[in-house]
Amino acid sequence: MVALLGLAAGAQVPAAAQRYVAAHREQLVKAFSDLLAIPNQSSDPANIERNAAAIERLYQAQGVQTELLGIPGAPPVVFGRLDRPGATRTITFYAHYDGQPVHPEEWAQPPYQPVVRDGRIWARSAGDDKAAVFGFTAALGALRAAGITPAVNLHFYLEGEEEAGSPHLAQFLSTYADKLRTDAWIICDGPVHQSGRMQVFFGARGVAEVQMTVYGPGHGLHDGHYGNWAPNPITMLVHLLAGMRDDNARILIPGFYDDVRPLGAAERRAIAAMPAYDATLARDLELGHTEGAPATLAEQIAKPALNIRGIQGGFVGKGAANVISTEASASLDFRLVPDERPEKVRELVESYIRKQGYTILDHAPSPDERRAHAKLIRLQWGSGYPAAQVPLDAPLSRQVVRLVQDASPQPVIRLPIMGGSVPMYLFQGPGHIPAIGVPIANYDDNQHSANENLRLDYLWQGIAVYASLFAGLR
Amino acid sequence: MVALLGLAAGAQVPAAAQRYVAAHREQLVKAFSDLLAIPNQSSDPANIERNAAAIERLYQAQGVQTELLGIPGAPPVVFGRLDRPGATRTITFYAHYDGQPVHPEEWAQPPYQPVVRDGRIWARSAGDDKAAVFGFTAALGALRAAGITPAVNLHFYLEGEEEAGSPHLAQFLSTYADKLRTDAWIICDGPVHQSGRMQVFFGARGVAEVQMTVYGPGHGLHDGHYGNWAPNPITMLVHLLAGMRDDNARILIPGFYDDVRPLGAAERRAIAAMPAYDATLARDLELGHTEGAPATLAEQIAKPALNIRGIQGGFVGKGAANVISTEASASLDFRLVPDERPEKVRELVESYIRKQGYTILDHAPSPDERRAHAKLIRLQWGSGYPAAQVPLDAPLSRQVVRLVQDASPQPVIRLPIMGGSVPMYLFQGPGHIPAIGVPIANYDDNQHSANENLRLDYLWQGIAVYASLFAGLR
Repeated sequence: MVALLGLAAGAQVPAAAQRYVAAHREQLVKAFSDLLAIPNQSSDPANIERNAAAIERLYQAQGVQTELLGIPGAPPVVFGRLDRPGATRTITFYAHYDGQPVHPEEWAQPPYQPVVRDGRIWARSAGDDKAAVFGFTAALGALRAAGITPAVNLHFYLEGEEEAGSPHLAQFLSTYADKLRTDAWIICDGPVHQSGRMQVFFGARGVAEVQMTVYGPGHGLHDGHYGNWAPNPITMLVHLLAGMRDDNARILIPGFYDDVRPLGAAERRAIAAMPAYDATLARDLELGHTEGAPATLAEQIAKPALNIRGIQGGFVGKGAANVISTEASASLDFRLVPDERPEKVRELVESYIRKQGYTILDHAPSPDERRAHAKLIRLQWGSGYPAAQVPLDAPLSRQVVRLVQDASPQPVIRLPIMGGSVPMYLFQGPGHIPAIGVPIANYDDNQHSANENLRLDYLWQGIAVYASLFAGLR
Repeated sequence: MVALLGLAAGAQVPAAAQRYVAAHREQLVKAFSDLLAIPNQSSDPANIERNAAAIERLYQAQGVQTELLGIPGAPPVVFGRLDRPGATRTITFYAHYDGQPVHPEEWAQPPYQPVVRDGRIWARSAGDDKAAVFGFTAALGALRAAGITPAVNLHFYLEGEEEAGSPHLAQFLSTYADKLRTDAWIICDGPVHQSGRMQVFFGARGVAEVQMTVYGPGHGLHDGHYGNWAPNPITMLVHLLAGMRDDNARILIPGFYDDVRPLGAAERRAIAAMPAYDATLARDLELGHTEGAPATLAEQIAKPALNIRGIQGGFVGKGAANVISTEASASLDFRLVPDERPEKVRELVESYIRKQGYTILDHAPSPDERRAHAKLIRLQWGSGYPAAQVPLDAPLSRQVVRLVQDASPQPVIRLPIMGGSVPMYLFQGPGHIPAIGVPIANYDDNQHSANENLRLDYLWQGIAVYASLFAGLR
């Protein structure tokens, strides 16, 4: 074991990782580039298999025992195990090796021909999420070089269809439940805070989606001859929606907040400690005001949300005509916090809508149905799922924050819950296994769009973070 | 002069017209078909000229002195005069000879190859509005055959761009103001009542149109990460619109009803006397309820209206995505009654919008404008115009109703104001010349769509109505 004199105990591992990185930069960039050069859309089985094989080789080179978990029609999960004899606990690290579709004409260079420029490596999935897939192996290499042995079994779950919405995730987790038994999940995906500071997130909001269509006359009517008398479905929809949410983020559906678990003291402290970044962000996003002010973004995304994603009825612009439309639709999503459940949200929404005099259908109405009911609405619910959250003052939560902090020059941000929805509840499962998120990519990594990139200094820091977690988790 | 013994004085002229029609059906159908065979879209100058020339010949054959009134870039107005030596009053009959565009693939037969089938003549403009252009000449023929001479100067104003929105009507009326001097206008366009009964209308609502666009972030934002904090323009628009009108036809904009002239006693009696047809109509149109109930359609269209014609923001259906849109738009029209003015409506709407905290723009905002204002809206106003209405108890109003009644087997309906907007205020002009509408086409004439048609029995009755008016107006 190399000497680590003069450093605080926790900082010794990241320091060793940084020395390892400094000594191996070229090889690391080369190996990362080789991985990024393999096209990785989940709909491209041949290349997905090439990715999986290359990843197995990278992990095997660090002493990790790998296997491919399969489900018919799904890209394989690369599952890796670095078990330690006598270890009583297992921690599983999650990342994904597939990437978003590419439109090469929008890129400065071909998306699967990685280029290093301006301190960044440019390629599809550089940030999202091969940074983690590769970073884990580099961190393992650093620990081996320093002679440092993890205290727990380290498992790796690397999926190949996250950008397609992880359609088989639940099936993988149940089919391979025995093999995947673990004491905690560390989810390594997404970007760090916009300020550049590392952040750890302790959950993600759930979601419920619905499309609603309100019906007017059986065919379009001249609005001069029939307006004021024939019901206009756009007007009906506008009133229905206005009654569901005010324009200051408050949901008006009766009972909607009943199941919301109040934030704990630790969560409130974490939010209060977040850097004051909202004004900068509002400027960047060209916002003239924010909803819920003076509440901050972090406070606002810790609450349930109702977002109107789309609305459509009749025509605007050049197509506008003096017509009462036959129907009008809106697409909504609800973002859920603990302890809301999507089934309950559906009940509350439908109860509210019925109280406004509507008859709810699961199909487009027939002429006779239109005639028989004063107000008709069709609801098309998507499959939703609940939020998941680990308390910030749980022992594992404190441990993760401390270990990430050991590898970070600035104070680590603790985000009680992510605004976006990812199905972290699946990792938690019926046993409420804790799942905690540790992202390493730069905020401006252009994930999901052209010219995706990863700042190399963020990669090096990420490797130190992973090494700190691998070595320190108990 | 033929004998008209045994008939009430007023019924003698329509009876003579009916005898004339009965004796000349084949020639009349042939002559009408020849006129319908000439394509008549206002954007087709060669055919428009052929129409105008054919119409001049038809009118000259009845002793009418014709000329073409021109304005550069506009289809000519065929202006006809049948002046009576010594007459002190002039009545001008309006109709239009142009038609809506056609999509021949939707028709059962070519739209400019008239066919008689099932008691109807099928061709573009059969109902709207060559029925009147041709019917006037047939009525003149009937009067000549019966040796009946009008007591007033009869003028005919036949325009060729009504279906394009009469863009030069104001200019024609002012350019040829001396020539067009008249004591009244009779507007012969549109269909009779849905019940099949003749109706006379004494005005038309005015109109004001506006497209409004509300702005959100400078580019689309993930609604999970930013919803509840970044303002959603669809939500903003929904609240703005919900505050402008309830879903029961009532306009909520402060002051909107201040200028509304209450209906007079004669107008209220006319509405009360209308046939109970709403239930049948609601069934035909597949309506489950009507706005403003128990008020009838006729009562409702005598009030100002706010119609949301279109709304658009983000995407619904398959295109729906978790995005806060950059903008959302709605297209609205207001239908105005006496004495509302479009300029005042604009003032009231803008004042309401400002009170909701909006800054009004006449252009799409720059990034700095987005940052500088809490709520931004762009308003694009169309050119509007006021309503026009003649009192039902004015001498001319009573005269017209009596003369139409003389030619009608059922009680004539008096509609104080048409729901749709036509610029009748232009005919009235600064001198408040009365303008009264007398339609003859069947309600189900498919005007503006494929398979336009005119019931021949409606044409024959219409000719009797025109003859009654020509002979009886004083």
